[in-house]
Amino acid sequence: MSSTIGTLFKVSTFGESHGKGVGAIVDGCPARLTLVEADIQAQLDRRRPGQSALTTPRQESDTVTILSGVENGLTLGTPIGLFVPNKDQRPNDYHNLADIPRPSHADYTYRAKYGIKTSSGGGRSSARETIGRVAAGAIAEKFLAERYGVQIVAYVSSVGEITAGSIDPAAITRKLVDTTPIRCPDPVAAAKMITLVSAMREAKDSTGGVITCLVRNVPAGWGNPVFEKLEAQLAQAMLSLPATKGFEIGSGFAGAAMRGSQHNDPFILKNGTLTTATNYSGGIQGGISNGAPIVFRVAFKPPATIGQPQKTVDYNGQDVLLEAKGRHDPCVVPRAVPIVEAMAALVLADSALLQQAYQSGASPQV
Amino acid sequence: MSSTIGTLFKVSTFGESHGKGVGAIVDGCPARLTLVEADIQAQLDRRRPGQSALTTPRQESDTVTILSGVENGLTLGTPIGLFVPNKDQRPNDYHNLADIPRPSHADYTYRAKYGIKTSSGGGRSSARETIGRVAAGAIAEKFLAERYGVQIVAYVSSVGEITAGSIDPAAITRKLVDTTPIRCPDPVAAAKMITLVSAMREAKDSTGGVITCLVRNVPAGWGNPVFEKLEAQLAQAMLSLPATKGFEIGSGFAGAAMRGSQHNDPFILKNGTLTTATNYSGGIQGGISNGAPIVFRVAFKPPATIGQPQKTVDYNGQDVLLEAKGRHDPCVVPRAVPIVEAMAALVLADSALLQQAYQSGASPQV
Amino acid sequence: MSSTIGTLFKVSTFGESHGKGVGAIVDGCPARLTLVEADIQAQLDRRRPGQSALTTPRQESDTVTILSGVENGLTLGTPIGLFVPNKDQRPNDYHNLADIPRPSHADYTYRAKYGIKTSSGGGRSSARETIGRVAAGAIAEKFLAERYGVQIVAYVSSVGEITAGSIDPAAITRKLVDTTPIRCPDPVAAAKMITLVSAMREAKDSTGGVITCLVRNVPAGWGNPVFEKLEAQLAQAMLSLPATKGFEIGSGFAGAAMRGSQHNDPFILKNGTLTTATNYSGGIQGGISNGAPIVFRVAFKPPATIGQPQKTVDYNGQDVLLEAKGRHDPCVVPRAVPIVEAMAALVLADSALLQQAYQSGASPQV
Amino acid sequence: MSSTIGTLFKVSTFGESHGKGVGAIVDGCPARLTLVEADIQAQLDRRRPGQSALTTPRQESDTVTILSGVENGLTLGTPIGLFVPNKDQRPNDYHNLADIPRPSHADYTYRAKYGIKTSSGGGRSSARETIGRVAAGAIAEKFLAERYGVQIVAYVSSVGEITAGSIDPAAITRKLVDTTPIRCPDPVAAAKMITLVSAMREAKDSTGGVITCLVRNVPAGWGNPVFEKLEAQLAQAMLSLPATKGFEIGSGFAGAAMRGSQHNDPFILKNGTLTTATNYSGGIQGGISNGAPIVFRVAFKPPATIGQPQKTVDYNGQDVLLEAKGRHDPCVVPRAVPIVEAMAALVLADSALLQQAYQSGASPQV
Repeated sequence: MSSTIGTLFKVSTFGESHGKGVGAIVDGCPARLTLVEADIQAQLDRRRPGQSALTTPRQESDTVTILSGVENGLTLGTPIGLFVPNKDQRPNDYHNLADIPRPSHADYTYRAKYGIKTSSGGGRSSARETIGRVAAGAIAEKFLAERYGVQIVAYVSSVGEITAGSIDPAAITRKLVDTTPIRCPDPVAAAKMITLVSAMREAKDSTGGVITCLVRNVPAGWGNPVFEKLEAQLAQAMLSLPATKGFEIGSGFAGAAMRGSQHNDPFILKNGTLTTATNYSGGIQGGISNGAPIVFRVAFKPPATIGQPQKTVDYNGQDVLLEAKGRHDPCVVPRAVPIVEAMAALVLADSALLQQAYQSGASPQV
Repeated sequence: MSSTIGTLFKVSTFGESHGKGVGAIVDGCPARLTLVEADIQAQLDRRRPGQSALTTPRQESDTVTILSGVENGLTLGTPIGLFVPNKDQRPNDYHNLADIPRPSHADYTYRAKYGIKTSSGGGRSSARETIGRVAAGAIAEKFLAERYGVQIVAYVSSVGEITAGSIDPAAITRKLVDTTPIRCPDPVAAAKMITLVSAMREAKDSTGGVITCLVRNVPAGWGNPVFEKLEAQLAQAMLSLPATKGFEIGSGFAGAAMRGSQHNDPFILKNGTLTTATNYSGGIQGGISNGAPIVFRVAFKPPATIGQPQKTVDYNGQDVLLEAKGRHDPCVVPRAVPIVEAMAALVLADSALLQQAYQSGASPQV
Repeated sequence: MSSTIGTLFKVSTFGESHGKGVGAIVDGCPARLTLVEADIQAQLDRRRPGQSALTTPRQESDTVTILSGVENGLTLGTPIGLFVPNKDQRPNDYHNLADIPRPSHADYTYRAKYGIKTSSGGGRSSARETIGRVAAGAIAEKFLAERYGVQIVAYVSSVGEITAGSIDPAAITRKLVDTTPIRCPDPVAAAKMITLVSAMREAKDSTGGVITCLVRNVPAGWGNPVFEKLEAQLAQAMLSLPATKGFEIGSGFAGAAMRGSQHNDPFILKNGTLTTATNYSGGIQGGISNGAPIVFRVAFKPPATIGQPQKTVDYNGQDVLLEAKGRHDPCVVPRAVPIVEAMAALVLADSALLQQAYQSGASPQV
Repeated sequence: MSSTIGTLFKVSTFGESHGKGVGAIVDGCPARLTLVEADIQAQLDRRRPGQSALTTPRQESDTVTILSGVENGLTLGTPIGLFVPNKDQRPNDYHNLADIPRPSHADYTYRAKYGIKTSSGGGRSSARETIGRVAAGAIAEKFLAERYGVQIVAYVSSVGEITAGSIDPAAITRKLVDTTPIRCPDPVAAAKMITLVSAMREAKDSTGGVITCLVRNVPAGWGNPVFEKLEAQLAQAMLSLPATKGFEIGSGFAGAAMRGSQHNDPFILKNGTLTTATNYSGGIQGGISNGAPIVFRVAFKPPATIGQPQKTVDYNGQDVLLEAKGRHDPCVVPRAVPIVEAMAALVLADSALLQQAYQSGASPQV
């Protein structure tokens, strides 16, 4: 509780890493959107393990099936069931873990919450749960692109201590991002990041990183005042991803060190409409989009599964030396790029429908 | 939409800065909690304007009345209505603003959303809306303290470029925090921060800051997997506050530059129970509390209302020079401390009730 | 929990019969609806006690104040706070009841639920709670009338064993309904009903009754499949009213005794649009409105408060003879008419906004 | 929207009658409940078509698979995915219907809502959607029985004009109900009902009926005041079932003709606890269970699909004579018995968890 997000574009995910499969139900996608499985598969392929030498060597094709809600290539307006069967499970990799809560994993907290020890290595805290999010997000993204021209592009902006140089927010595309397997569009930084990730694998260690996400063409007026501010919903969506430790929008933490006279975004007239000269706000003011690009960053910790031996204790408090045998990613950010895009799409599709609900059709009051 | 937060400890706020008043309805507070208005007033007094030379000179007593849900000093289990009348309104301060969207305020986006221009200076994006949150949060906090011994203490950890030195998380108390009006428990940094804020007032400028929040004695097992992870709910709660630009938990953005071998929190046995030797996780793993202190930080931008003249354009795109006449805070973080505490309390009270809902009463499986 | 209804047109009520007052928050009313207190007061006046010799002699003016969400006579899109102070309280009427759970009241079940005995005579189960519903419903109704031309008219169709004759659904208006204080538009039945209610008062007894509600001009397409079928939401709304025991739509229970060949509503062409020749469906098919009038009926039990002595037991199981001294209605249906209308309006306003959220603007597929 | 029911025991269904299958996600079932597919299959078998000569001859085995949320025969606390593949589809039976909205079906209203004409014969309004409800309900029922001893038994109390005689609520069991295929425990009435249903099949016609549902051993204190009264939630749950036209609890519509002096349920002491001498309330007072059996009745209309030719018009308004070729039930109530039980279980499991959430562990106040 609760595996559901959204008020009108409502998505529920289900499935553990070691059960029959994982999936999602999308309830509230408008009718008459063209949709086939290939529309969804593209982002799943960007998320899947084994796609490059930088990720876990586990090979999972993660092929999606639409179970319901679509007929003759059109959405019906009814719940869209999505399912991806599990394959290549090696529960034995986790066999010796039944008595040892892995450091910085969720084994200990799940047991505290549910009173149950699972024999498997993860349950709902597994990154595999994000398959349902990516599949549902691909549908949200298609709706946003076709109805509003919204473009969502995320990229890796830092890995460990290596940070990408300045990126032109107007020029960035998914194709550009996918030029390198690390998904950083600054080629110099990308090369260093790849070297670092390879070194981590060698060292049986792992590293964290940061993803920046840009959303263009969101009309002014999406989002809400108070508890469901657009940035608040984005923050929740991003911090709901495994391994995330931080979220910032626009100026972010750096903005806390600025002066109001620097930070305020003055209005200007451009092509006949009001826009802002700067974008420290990150495209949102008072919880509501202002038409400028939405820009936010998400921090991911280093993966907790490392091959190095770790000193810890088992559930009985006995000292143990833990060596992970499972196949894992030394850095999650390259594969997390489509996941961040998916979560942004889910939040925005919900916001789009909410805003449409309250429109009167009349022009703004003069 | 939506002015409501929480699933079981559900709070709805209402009221604009220039209407009859502001308030909140708390629906889902357990019955038989002792409660009088003084329990709520204490935190409102820490939030109110005019409490020190560092804040806006507006004098608002912000006295709360309980409208319902309490009888003979005990909660009934029914909705608790809370109301604080507005006073000391000077709408004329905002009179010339009807045609000018103030930079980095919500005037422009509210008009885009609702199609209406309000004659007042803020509506629901006003910091005054947070009165309802603080009042409701005080009730949540009382419930958490009495039932579970939970302690929530927030403090100012940076103002502009000035950052507090190391703070012992075990020693910090609200009393210590309130030693200085800036609410930073490091006295050296506090003095510098006060000087900076005073300089900002002189310069008709403003500055941002960061608040750190510590929550002690949360039992292991609160929170949820997936979309309602405890850190995700805290992130939403904090980014729903006016002027916030970032949230981080535990290691935060710094964690993204770390190695797994450094960042993992190994388990140790302490006083007969498992705990972690370090707390980079910030008290939460996989969305669920692990019993360690919850630690998070919230970035606040510099207030958008500044006395300096600003070049911007009006709704018609005509150049204007805007000079704010309203009374305002040069830095919001001292007054935001009880607000951050209130939002943390709301999230945690909801988590406590949710966790109780699913308990079987049986011991964890061995 | 939970005192909130609706997904987009969301209403929360608060207040006990013996606290400071009762009220409601309407969160999600579209902006720019003209609204003044008089728009709301009219229905409150139809609900208030003491309005005729048929009702309780308690005199409560029930004057509503708008606390927020409206400026210059226009809704802002933000939460509309509504408050009605309590007056004419006589808690002593209920003084001797602290130890005796009144038969068919909620005293016993509230105590079982909340573990608390209130000294007052009712709490949230009081009919006074419905003031917030009527106030909120008046706003919903105004929105529906202005935007869609929806008309909602309820009337008393039976009191005790007296049932109104055939009523022309096209001719019925609120004015016609209010011709008699019993609110039954069949004058012959109305006279008998009035006699019966007066006899009940004399006999210190009470009687039940049935309210029929007609809703005209709901466009086809409102409502939902599955759990939130329009009739399901109406059923919930009506059974959430105090003293209700049944709900039926269209043919209702009588439909269970019919044949499919009789009960099916064949389509016909009328004024260029499809409609149905009969309306056993009651205006809804598969949970979604079909454009025909929505017709439903609600059964109300006889009020539990009667002046006759009743044999029962106190909380300790001791035999007692209970004689109510409170002032009460011998029959609730005349005053329940505006309450049923309000609940219908709340459900339909929410449905209208939901349907608008998913509209593509394109014509139906041919 | 919305295919989800419940706050804490939350169930979402998905799937059309002519897609790949139907199913449900149960989010919020407590951990450590023993659960295997056979626990669910039993009620699906009571619901499935072709189980007796009284139902549609369509043969669908409706075998359920648990996709997630269960490991080693124990629930994990995570979402339980349930799936039943579709078989024996004959879309050609519905081929000629693309241009004709079937009378009293949802074809017309779905097209009005979604702007789309499906080539299939029903979509989400199909009775097949109820498979997900029955599967989820079986889990809810197991939880209620094991934790609280709750027993839910529904039976057919009328078919067309034939009504069962008096049934002893204490003696009724599922086994007794299943003695005859019509599921009426009064053998004399059952025989007449079977004859009537057979005659309907012969006449290519259909008939409605009524189901009565009894719930024993619900503790006092479940349910809520105001909008989520227990009877309101049951009413919503029942009216959300296809073909339902009415709901009544306890005395129901007959109660509207009674006097308060008859209808009130006086308290008595029995085996050391308070209970009521009569049960006109139907086990609920003020929205909260009182410990007495919960008794309600649900009216089902005659199935709209009949073999007789029907005069109606197509979407263009042209006169047509419609003859259904699909295989259908002449009366739905025998198969609806487990569906009514499932919906009751879903509402009550949610109520049980909600009540546990707010318990303090302390004894009721004296």
